[in-house]
Amino acid sequence: MPALAGKAAENLRKIRASKPLIHNITNFVVMNTTANVLLAGGASPIMAHAANEVDEIVDLADALVLNIGTLTDDWVITMLKAGRRASDLGKPIVLDPVGAGATALRTNAARAILFQTWVSVVRGNASEILSLSGRDSATKGVDTVHTVSDAAEEACLLARELGATLAVTGPSDLVTDGRRTLTVEGGHPLMPYVTGTGCAATALIGAFLAVDKDPVTAAATALAYFGIAGETAGTKAAGPGTFMVHLLDALYTLTPEEVEARCRISQG
Amino acid sequence: MPALAGKAAENLRKIRASKPLIHNITNFVVMNTTANVLLAGGASPIMAHAANEVDEIVDLADALVLNIGTLTDDWVITMLKAGRRASDLGKPIVLDPVGAGATALRTNAARAILFQTWVSVVRGNASEILSLSGRDSATKGVDTVHTVSDAAEEACLLARELGATLAVTGPSDLVTDGRRTLTVEGGHPLMPYVTGTGCAATALIGAFLAVDKDPVTAAATALAYFGIAGETAGTKAAGPGTFMVHLLDALYTLTPEEVEARCRISQG
Amino acid sequence: MPALAGKAAENLRKIRASKPLIHNITNFVVMNTTANVLLAGGASPIMAHAANEVDEIVDLADALVLNIGTLTDDWVITMLKAGRRASDLGKPIVLDPVGAGATALRTNAARAILFQTWVSVVRGNASEILSLSGRDSATKGVDTVHTVSDAAEEACLLARELGATLAVTGPSDLVTDGRRTLTVEGGHPLMPYVTGTGCAATALIGAFLAVDKDPVTAAATALAYFGIAGETAGTKAAGPGTFMVHLLDALYTLTPEEVEARCRISQG
Repeated sequence: MPALAGKAAENLRKIRASKPLIHNITNFVVMNTTANVLLAGGASPIMAHAANEVDEIVDLADALVLNIGTLTDDWVITMLKAGRRASDLGKPIVLDPVGAGATALRTNAARAILFQTWVSVVRGNASEILSLSGRDSATKGVDTVHTVSDAAEEACLLARELGATLAVTGPSDLVTDGRRTLTVEGGHPLMPYVTGTGCAATALIGAFLAVDKDPVTAAATALAYFGIAGETAGTKAAGPGTFMVHLLDALYTLTPEEVEARCRISQG
Repeated sequence: MPALAGKAAENLRKIRASKPLIHNITNFVVMNTTANVLLAGGASPIMAHAANEVDEIVDLADALVLNIGTLTDDWVITMLKAGRRASDLGKPIVLDPVGAGATALRTNAARAILFQTWVSVVRGNASEILSLSGRDSATKGVDTVHTVSDAAEEACLLARELGATLAVTGPSDLVTDGRRTLTVEGGHPLMPYVTGTGCAATALIGAFLAVDKDPVTAAATALAYFGIAGETAGTKAAGPGTFMVHLLDALYTLTPEEVEARCRISQG
Repeated sequence: MPALAGKAAENLRKIRASKPLIHNITNFVVMNTTANVLLAGGASPIMAHAANEVDEIVDLADALVLNIGTLTDDWVITMLKAGRRASDLGKPIVLDPVGAGATALRTNAARAILFQTWVSVVRGNASEILSLSGRDSATKGVDTVHTVSDAAEEACLLARELGATLAVTGPSDLVTDGRRTLTVEGGHPLMPYVTGTGCAATALIGAFLAVDKDPVTAAATALAYFGIAGETAGTKAAGPGTFMVHLLDALYTLTPEEVEARCRISQG
């Protein structure tokens, strides 16, 4: 879809020009990686989780990223507070339901965020996303137990039910708001061997939402850009260590023109 | 010892085939590194420390890794809770007593974990390990002040006293349950210049325990594998930055056959 | 200034000989990077933030680094406690007021630390530093909105007002105690694209303060060393991922002689 390839380039250009401030309330494992991925992409990250400062941070920010890995009760309270503020101000919210389906704490937190705030996009693997439906699902840690294709139909229904765009990532990625469905190709088999690549994709969706108000195109173009960077990194990597290093380099050096030429977003 | 070299290869093969889920309650400094080391080795990491979800995570996990760096009281409570659950279920526990001997909080926490749960293996440097005996020891931060050889005899006594296998790491590593004692050669002088290499070794012992119920062979083969990866990384590194990157690559690319051929575990 | 170039070499030599223990109470995003930068430089890092152990850690440490990124109220309490102990013992304290000016929590915490403890050096970007004056300033996240040159005059006044040495970093760095002012050249344009480079510079100032009791020369020589390492890394980097890796290598491999030869510290 050439229109979406052009949109991917346009969004990346806007991020690099405006350096949107992305407020992340995210897990301890990926905070460093997430900040580095946002910086490499051209955005400006801030990590803040104190209940008595998140309102001020949300006020400054252009998008809010909520990620429930390494969760505790007080972080849920902060996420809900920040999310409600962002909702009131009409600022986009992305949710990463890390490990939803694996424990009651995580599943309930993800659903509370979805019900009490205006989440634009939920990004997760198939089992995490499907666990949000309240129907039966099994999550093994943070790994995928459903394939993306199995999940496509259910994701469309769920997107409508939740009133949010869903970005189900895996070997290929699916983005749907229940009416429009896009498939994004890209990435590399080493990605699952580096922690936080999914969380980084979520944060990039936040940056793209800051410059593109359509959650479906924002999520799909962010994932396309991330996937292209993964392909570039894959050509230079000898394993997961060098892969992550080259991924940051690729996110930084990729031009909007190159992203447009290599973008593979298709309908359905 | 060819039998143990074969065991090292077998354990690595099993980890890559079964991708055991390793539950880590670990410190903030090394969470990212620990997850990446486990992934590179073929295991599946999960980090979770909320008191109200650790039981569910332990139920899903194949081994539990407790690491007391950046400790606070509420984390001690969670570690004890998770450790008791794992003990009840017969799931292996590894303890990394980071900084034990340096502060009362850490020494007491390590000993509480040892006395209230069934720890299979304790992995630390000589001063951390020896501080657990309640006898006199001085720890300077997280650095070694005792040499491994000085510690060998005392470690044997302590292993019997604590009823746990001790893995004392340094330029060469010592593994003992008080009856059997193994020495593991390997590693690289750059390792102490990268934070979290010790903690990563601890987590890998967790992965090896998930596929090898003998704590002595599990710990020794995990350390042998880690040491071989360190040697490979050392040949490619120009300093601690490139060393860590190549270490992850080596953990990922090393074959069981190569590990068997290069394994240096000896008795005594 | 050849005298300061010699001082930079001397300080680095002392750090590598004595491996000073640097106690960091710092933010979650940069803990790993900070520890690795200190290790690469030759120092010995320890991260500890529990209120019931910080006194013991301060007693062991040669310098204390306080960094208010990802702050919460309980961390403020711990920082004040550790800072008061270090003040009582005459151990040097460095403060990194990450995001001061952006939220009341951070601005108030930075000022409370400055008023209740003996801070030797404050290291931040221009807007963070200037927000400490209580006069009007706008901070956008953790990014610089003031240039260093704009800030020079105001920094001199503020240093005298606060009774601390200020290190204002940017494309070039300014160090002043209100009477002496030094400018440090070095670094690389990729530095702002890697999270935690500023925080790492702060931690290195802590290591240099452990071996050099003059806060102005300690801060300037630490920043010179860090800037030289950044230049070396920049010649090898293809983007922010490879830059960080080579930065750690450069910090480790740079000799005192090379630092002396390349040091660019000037007066005023």
